[in-house]
Amino acid sequence: MRDAYHEELDSLTDKLVEMTRLVRSAISRATTALLDADLQLAESVISRDEVVNAVFDDIETSIFDLMARQQPVAVDLRMVVTGLRMATNLERMGDLAVHVAKVARLRHPDSAIPPEMRSTIVQMGQIAENLVTKAGSCVASRDVESAMELDQDDDAMDRLHRRLFKDILAKDWQHGVEPAIDITLIGRYYERYADHAVHVAESVVYMVTGSRPADRV
Amino acid sequence: MRDAYHEELDSLTDKLVEMTRLVRSAISRATTALLDADLQLAESVISRDEVVNAVFDDIETSIFDLMARQQPVAVDLRMVVTGLRMATNLERMGDLAVHVAKVARLRHPDSAIPPEMRSTIVQMGQIAENLVTKAGSCVASRDVESAMELDQDDDAMDRLHRRLFKDILAKDWQHGVEPAIDITLIGRYYERYADHAVHVAESVVYMVTGSRPADRV
Repeated sequence: MRDAYHEELDSLTDKLVEMTRLVRSAISRATTALLDADLQLAESVISRDEVVNAVFDDIETSIFDLMARQQPVAVDLRMVVTGLRMATNLERMGDLAVHVAKVARLRHPDSAIPPEMRSTIVQMGQIAENLVTKAGSCVASRDVESAMELDQDDDAMDRLHRRLFKDILAKDWQHGVEPAIDITLIGRYYERYADHAVHVAESVVYMVTGSRPADRV
Repeated sequence: MRDAYHEELDSLTDKLVEMTRLVRSAISRATTALLDADLQLAESVISRDEVVNAVFDDIETSIFDLMARQQPVAVDLRMVVTGLRMATNLERMGDLAVHVAKVARLRHPDSAIPPEMRSTIVQMGQIAENLVTKAGSCVASRDVESAMELDQDDDAMDRLHRRLFKDILAKDWQHGVEPAIDITLIGRYYERYADHAVHVAESVVYMVTGSRPADRV
């Protein structure tokens, strides 16, 4: 049987996994809201972000409480400190999903995405979901091997991000400046979302091994 | 006389203040590089980011070491945990200055900023510098009152950010899509830089009082 202390650490892991689930749902709904110009769905992403923030606050409180009472050392200490960092990354991912939803809301009843760019956005949304799903599995399993694999998805995200710019800057771009700005920002939101998911996975590596993946931008 | 433990905590504060100085210099030089299309200056911002990252690594190592050996409680515990968070914010501010510098490098020998928008960028750079200077003072002095004042500068940054969009979307915009994208991204970088500076100041409030300023986006 596990003692109360380790139950608290397990509970922390559960809350982090719950956050990955929430921000996965947020980016998924935000992408759909964007593509379908679905105002209600966009509003739901925006208003539900408070749930993500509440879990974040809960994690933060638990961690301070745990550190003050239990004074964890070694891997447990890394667990709580990197737990706080993961929660911070996940909270930010929720914000980025909200930013995407706000663009959808701003352009409603139009769609911010020209027809020929829909498939790129669909793919960016898909990769964002994959990344956060994998990050959640890494947090739950503490599997270092799979945590290292997120880089590949992130590279795919970067390629799609560059393709967006290429499309906007193509000679036959006919949509003017406003959609170009929307897409520039949207692209940035997905790319940052992906980066944060990778950071969550990197934190798992650090938590387990005590050393960080080398390359930071 | 202070004991070794409190000397370590003081040293942590010194390193955080040093980071604010470094990232202030970075955004200052990046702004100049952008406005003057100064390639060498842009390169210097990009290459010097490793100094910011090195201080970050140093802070992170010190904090884990300190927590493992000294098991701080109460305000000292908040100090080390929020110290890590502040360092993360500051490291990111360094990255954002690099992003600005990379736009300058990409457009060299041209300037990415059309003449009529220079004054807005000058002001955004100035506010970014003010914010990080104030954040640095807050970290050094642990002054909660002045930490609360950063919001006003941040509001000014948001107004300038909106003005950028207004200019880009004006009927008489003659620069086409590429400069619009550059300016959209640059505006976002300054706005995020400012947000992170505000977060640093908010962390000071949390560190000292144990409660956070209420509103998070």
